[in-house]
Amino acid sequence: MKVISQNTAFGGMQGVYTHPSQACAGEMTFAVFVPPQAITRPCPVVWYLSGLTCTHANVMDKGEYRRMAAELGLIIICPDTSPRGENVADELTNWQMGKGAGFYLDATQTPWAEHYQMYTYVTEELPAFISQHFKVDMNRQAIFGHSMGGHGAMTIALKNPDRFKSCSAFAPIVAPSSADWSVGAFEKYLGTDTAAWRRYDACALVEDGARFPEFLIDQGAADGFLEKGLRPWLFEEAIRDTGIGLTLRMQERYDHSYYFISTFMDDHLRWHAERLA
Amino acid sequence: MKVISQNTAFGGMQGVYTHPSQACAGEMTFAVFVPPQAITRPCPVVWYLSGLTCTHANVMDKGEYRRMAAELGLIIICPDTSPRGENVADELTNWQMGKGAGFYLDATQTPWAEHYQMYTYVTEELPAFISQHFKVDMNRQAIFGHSMGGHGAMTIALKNPDRFKSCSAFAPIVAPSSADWSVGAFEKYLGTDTAAWRRYDACALVEDGARFPEFLIDQGAADGFLEKGLRPWLFEEAIRDTGIGLTLRMQERYDHSYYFISTFMDDHLRWHAERLA
Repeated sequence: MKVISQNTAFGGMQGVYTHPSQACAGEMTFAVFVPPQAITRPCPVVWYLSGLTCTHANVMDKGEYRRMAAELGLIIICPDTSPRGENVADELTNWQMGKGAGFYLDATQTPWAEHYQMYTYVTEELPAFISQHFKVDMNRQAIFGHSMGGHGAMTIALKNPDRFKSCSAFAPIVAPSSADWSVGAFEKYLGTDTAAWRRYDACALVEDGARFPEFLIDQGAADGFLEKGLRPWLFEEAIRDTGIGLTLRMQERYDHSYYFISTFMDDHLRWHAERLA
Repeated sequence: MKVISQNTAFGGMQGVYTHPSQACAGEMTFAVFVPPQAITRPCPVVWYLSGLTCTHANVMDKGEYRRMAAELGLIIICPDTSPRGENVADELTNWQMGKGAGFYLDATQTPWAEHYQMYTYVTEELPAFISQHFKVDMNRQAIFGHSMGGHGAMTIALKNPDRFKSCSAFAPIVAPSSADWSVGAFEKYLGTDTAAWRRYDACALVEDGARFPEFLIDQGAADGFLEKGLRPWLFEEAIRDTGIGLTLRMQERYDHSYYFISTFMDDHLRWHAERLA
């Protein structure tokens, strides 16, 4: 593990690190905030998955999670959104594909499969690495994210209900198999047989029997991606009569930006802390 | 006034605007956060002046002031740190001079004097413009800043004690006339006669009789600029027996970054709100 930066913040430590990833066949970057409580005891872990075009840094700079994480004693881990490096396949002019657009899936198609194994990286390799290097209580994990990262958090929770005590999302893509900004990427990463897409689609996972106790979703009503990309009402429909709980809050006047995320960050961290207690 | 962006945040509105400045002979950018309380009544104004290399955007992205400003009903105004534009004099390889390094002074030397009139801009032109375009209570103003902007806030408060109800600073340059990173700039902006420097130096201003009721200063003890650039003990010495109050807090393990600033932002906004009440 290489330390890129470590800065004291809110009594804890915001760090950025790189490490060689086997899953992604290259160097990966991630950010970890360790609250002051972790000096004396292992703390619960909250995973934050970022959206399209982001790295680990966007939420670290603009998410405003440290104050509340320090208060609640939560370790916040922010992975990157894709593999990186000169030898990694990319579509330079397409922000919905390649670098910054890993969609938290394991690609099966050429040339993407070589590096784009973000599902394995985020659910297996990085957690194993984190538990070796940080004072974490891996029996208490939660997961949340934004947009593409909301999709990531929800699908990962649905597939790993025993691992996560809670899941929430800011403006998640709930049905990427049919959303305008993800269909193209899914076809390239996973092939044209849409049956293979269903394990990375929250609505399809629920239809296919996956379960998680409850979700919190905040969605800006003034979000320009709402109608064609996000469509939380599809998840509302999908969970009907499943027993899955959903607190969906439409937030008037809010858009898709970190101004929206930072506003409701405290609520989400409290939601997780209550369920991690 | 041109609207660059407006985003809902914490029930209020974070905006970025440009306007033609007469003082700086060019277009200037500034950020304004308007809290929800300003919908119904004029709100007090808190000026935040940024440090070397920054624009209006650094504190807007990383300062984490909106939550508390919305709670306390404060309008936060963040000017740029210098004039901008292709025709503005600069030293491209020197981050301590020119663009991003206006030092909140009115330059008198060629070629700097043509655009670098940041003192007049921040204390006269921008306040007049703000009072025309925003629902502000200009009888209740406070000022604070970081590093070069801490110097700006303290010198402006000392020269305008009737205008500001309070002043605070994060890691301010308290004696730029002798600090390693400002001597070169002062010589170029103001000439070699150091008598002209004294009105932009907090310690010299106090020695020359300027007064302000009290200051709050937070300083990271692990700040790499502490010994040669910041030296808050010089201000402690300067105010001895003057009646000026000083709350100087050395913060163990904190550096010069926005991780430090954001950690203590709430304290500073509360300090101002109490004195603006």
